[in-house]
Amino acid sequence: MAEKLRITSLGGLDEVGKNLTVYEYKGDMIVVDCGLGFPDGEMYGVDVVIPNTAYISRNRDKLRAIVLTHGHEDHIGALPYVLQDINAPIYATAMTAGLVKLKLEEHKLLDIADIRIMEPGTSFKAGLFTIEPIHVNHSISGAVALAIGTPVGTVVHTGDFKIDTTPVNSDMTDLTRFGELGKKGVLLMLSDSTNAEHPGFSPSERTVGRRLRSLFEGCDKRVVVTTFASNVPRIQQIIESAAACGRKVAVTGRSMENMLKVALELGYINVPQGTLADLGQLKNLPPDKVCVITTGSQGESMSALYRMAFSGHKYIDIGSGDRVIISASAVPGNEKTVSRLINELLRRGAEVLYRSIDSDLHVSGHACQEEMKMLLALVKPKFFLPIHGEQRHLRAHAALAAEVGIPPANTLVTEIGRTVEVTKKSIKFGQTIPSGRVLVDGTGMGDVGSVVLRDRQHLAQDGMIAVVISLNSEDNSLLSGPDIITRGFVYVKESGDLINDMKSIVVETLDACEINDITDWATIKTSIKTALSSYVSKATKRSPMILPVIMEI
Amino acid sequence: MAEKLRITSLGGLDEVGKNLTVYEYKGDMIVVDCGLGFPDGEMYGVDVVIPNTAYISRNRDKLRAIVLTHGHEDHIGALPYVLQDINAPIYATAMTAGLVKLKLEEHKLLDIADIRIMEPGTSFKAGLFTIEPIHVNHSISGAVALAIGTPVGTVVHTGDFKIDTTPVNSDMTDLTRFGELGKKGVLLMLSDSTNAEHPGFSPSERTVGRRLRSLFEGCDKRVVVTTFASNVPRIQQIIESAAACGRKVAVTGRSMENMLKVALELGYINVPQGTLADLGQLKNLPPDKVCVITTGSQGESMSALYRMAFSGHKYIDIGSGDRVIISASAVPGNEKTVSRLINELLRRGAEVLYRSIDSDLHVSGHACQEEMKMLLALVKPKFFLPIHGEQRHLRAHAALAAEVGIPPANTLVTEIGRTVEVTKKSIKFGQTIPSGRVLVDGTGMGDVGSVVLRDRQHLAQDGMIAVVISLNSEDNSLLSGPDIITRGFVYVKESGDLINDMKSIVVETLDACEINDITDWATIKTSIKTALSSYVSKATKRSPMILPVIMEI
Repeated sequence: MAEKLRITSLGGLDEVGKNLTVYEYKGDMIVVDCGLGFPDGEMYGVDVVIPNTAYISRNRDKLRAIVLTHGHEDHIGALPYVLQDINAPIYATAMTAGLVKLKLEEHKLLDIADIRIMEPGTSFKAGLFTIEPIHVNHSISGAVALAIGTPVGTVVHTGDFKIDTTPVNSDMTDLTRFGELGKKGVLLMLSDSTNAEHPGFSPSERTVGRRLRSLFEGCDKRVVVTTFASNVPRIQQIIESAAACGRKVAVTGRSMENMLKVALELGYINVPQGTLADLGQLKNLPPDKVCVITTGSQGESMSALYRMAFSGHKYIDIGSGDRVIISASAVPGNEKTVSRLINELLRRGAEVLYRSIDSDLHVSGHACQEEMKMLLALVKPKFFLPIHGEQRHLRAHAALAAEVGIPPANTLVTEIGRTVEVTKKSIKFGQTIPSGRVLVDGTGMGDVGSVVLRDRQHLAQDGMIAVVISLNSEDNSLLSGPDIITRGFVYVKESGDLINDMKSIVVETLDACEINDITDWATIKTSIKTALSSYVSKATKRSPMILPVIMEI
Repeated sequence: MAEKLRITSLGGLDEVGKNLTVYEYKGDMIVVDCGLGFPDGEMYGVDVVIPNTAYISRNRDKLRAIVLTHGHEDHIGALPYVLQDINAPIYATAMTAGLVKLKLEEHKLLDIADIRIMEPGTSFKAGLFTIEPIHVNHSISGAVALAIGTPVGTVVHTGDFKIDTTPVNSDMTDLTRFGELGKKGVLLMLSDSTNAEHPGFSPSERTVGRRLRSLFEGCDKRVVVTTFASNVPRIQQIIESAAACGRKVAVTGRSMENMLKVALELGYINVPQGTLADLGQLKNLPPDKVCVITTGSQGESMSALYRMAFSGHKYIDIGSGDRVIISASAVPGNEKTVSRLINELLRRGAEVLYRSIDSDLHVSGHACQEEMKMLLALVKPKFFLPIHGEQRHLRAHAALAAEVGIPPANTLVTEIGRTVEVTKKSIKFGQTIPSGRVLVDGTGMGDVGSVVLRDRQHLAQDGMIAVVISLNSEDNSLLSGPDIITRGFVYVKESGDLINDMKSIVVETLDACEINDITDWATIKTSIKTALSSYVSKATKRSPMILPVIMEI
């Protein structure tokens, strides 16, 4: 039987984020990307979500490389959490490597990491895999696709990409290389599905630059611009526009400052001499000589722009003398926080320009339908796996593949943990390997699971009632209490009657237990819980968590 | 000094929802609309939000009428909560009245309500106000604007509206009447700002009908359509398309069934004889003879469509033989639940059509910029108050008013509770009256305030730790405990060490209190809390709520 190439995504399918794909052939394994995801609204208290990498750990002796396509969190963010467990050489372009180093330094993990710089067009070996990075456009510098040479054939893994004919500080996506590979024959392509529902072409990054420039020209206000910290080409264009209009530029917000530092060091951004300044220095300049680039495009409550809007910023208080430009879109789930920010800025009298009223203020970094089809048509893969997206995006991408002539039977929509087995002639589902999500809360990884989350959801919904009694260990007689403590249930000061009723019910329940000769504490607790929850539900139509506590004296 | 007309919105400004506007002149007051809002993501456990109507209660003897512009929840939903307190004749069109009756019946409040039917073109008196309803198009039948005659002049209050040249089962918005009023002279207009950021015209309801029809024609699958229950014109079009293609139609979901009942009774919908059937009856028909209209367009987890998708529905299990049409858009905040529904339907093999991939499947019921300007240009009000919207929408609407020639000084963007005083010649801000939001949770109104919400947020974030000890009341010696109970904090079974450490810390703290002669229980509790929270924060980087309980024996 011929050996198979086995491909399994441990994240990035049926979801947006935590992208991680495992390639295996015989005794060799590589991992492409190692991203984190963000908790959805029901994962109370969870900071980030990472893929379950137990399978990789178990096979760590086979792991030859972790290859990163670019430096966004959903592609590199899980590294600090998994690196102690699944160490291997990390391959990244210079920009991506710079960001990874910054991240690992913060987590004091830089020492254990073996980071190697890769460059578009220069192949390297990782076990029996040959990996060639291919330059692509994306909303971060240093993004690449990968051509992965395997014993069964070439696999193209696009990473996130778009096709920008006029990108900033870089060349267009290397369509020629994709086409050459296509001509030689590509067995399989895995491609980003994020914008598979969007028709047409994603506009060029330059369209944003032109619009920004027009908003600086002739403007006599202070200009404050926010965008995604990682979008160096955007920051480049903001700085150029500001400098061209004689403004000094200050950058604020930790992630933005970090990004600028890395981009400057590595030459991914060009700043005209004397343009950058500290925020403090700008204070003495007239408004029309000032530009502030800040974090906070998602309305994050601790971000610099949020603090400028809600009067918590050291240097800047936004008001009627300001033009605020939000050069970003709201990431799904952040619509309300972004709206809150816009509303507050407007209320303070600032002029606010944002994408809903000016569509040229942002472009997506992901390919739209025509770009996806173009890449499919260039690469002409025999088999196709849409990745990076919810079911709706994966299906839409599969439909596009069918449009350009890939037989529907040659496209598989798989799911997290479900292996796809590829030979020179076939593609099919294989086994399902251990997978899932690991919730990170504070320093804890995985100790917040479904039980803890369910409790948090319960507590969030209607709060809690603790009922504490002290019983004599000899005869179960009530020595003290019941004490009732509630949090998040009702406004206690105005609920004296309710609390007193609950106390009576507990006492009655204890009496009933005594009469019925119930002495087992577990049963007594259950009786108290049942009686109280029935009363509370009738009285308030709420179902708080009820916690009976019996102290033994 | 001339008397002033005083206008105050108690909801619907700087927010979407809970619309309620108070008009006062001397000893007379009317209320226009009485809506509810939905809790935002941080209002854990809150069912609905209603306006604080304390000011109206205090002036209830002046209240002459509650006038409703249409039957959407954000215009009528607060009635059951405030009616016992601020009773007055309720004026509504037949359709709106039908929905209000249904609602009040559910709350067993129908007896106390004095509901009066009003009709477009027929004026009525309410104190010294004269009210003329004017027919408008909206995504519900029976919607009206109001021309309110006051001693200082005519006020036009648009309610929600759009201008549909080809509406379903009704005429176009009565532009002529608006124009006549404009010619006679309108002092002030208050107008819906929902879509003020959207350029152009809102497409006609008929565009959806045409698209729906094309999706029924030649389709051999079972067709399941979901839309907003209140959108009777949409339901009309779905039924027409289904009937034209020889399908029987069943309607499922409580709100949809209620709506259909009211619309049928009042003649707002025409159903071809023999078209409607029960879900049970459809079971025996071939798929191409079946259409199901269902609730659940927002992905609500208890809705009929959700249950069909997640295998919880009595009659229908959706699969590869189904075409599911989501003829609605996601209300802001519901994007994720809608996406979850679409993904699950696709995963089950259904064909799913939704607005992101087919924009003709839904149209907004609210005017876009050109319609707003057209109404402003017809009514030519001297003064203008944008209502119904967040700050961004109100400001955008104000800008449109300026475009059509209303001097910016004649437009005021006010806020909830801030009265606007109008004379024949002036408009200005007046006093601020008591206002705000009242949170409804179960049967409780207002007992969930900021303290309770803050506790729920805290509990949701990191859970809670209760520490219970029994102390001898004579000498404060420890009789029992410490017992540690946690919920939503860590997975207890794997956290034995952590719990034991916490117990030790409590004992150490008690010892320290004794040595330092601290006998006051409040201080002992605070000491325990401080010591534990510092330990927990270091060990886990989490901040659960810590509740020390001391039992006195």
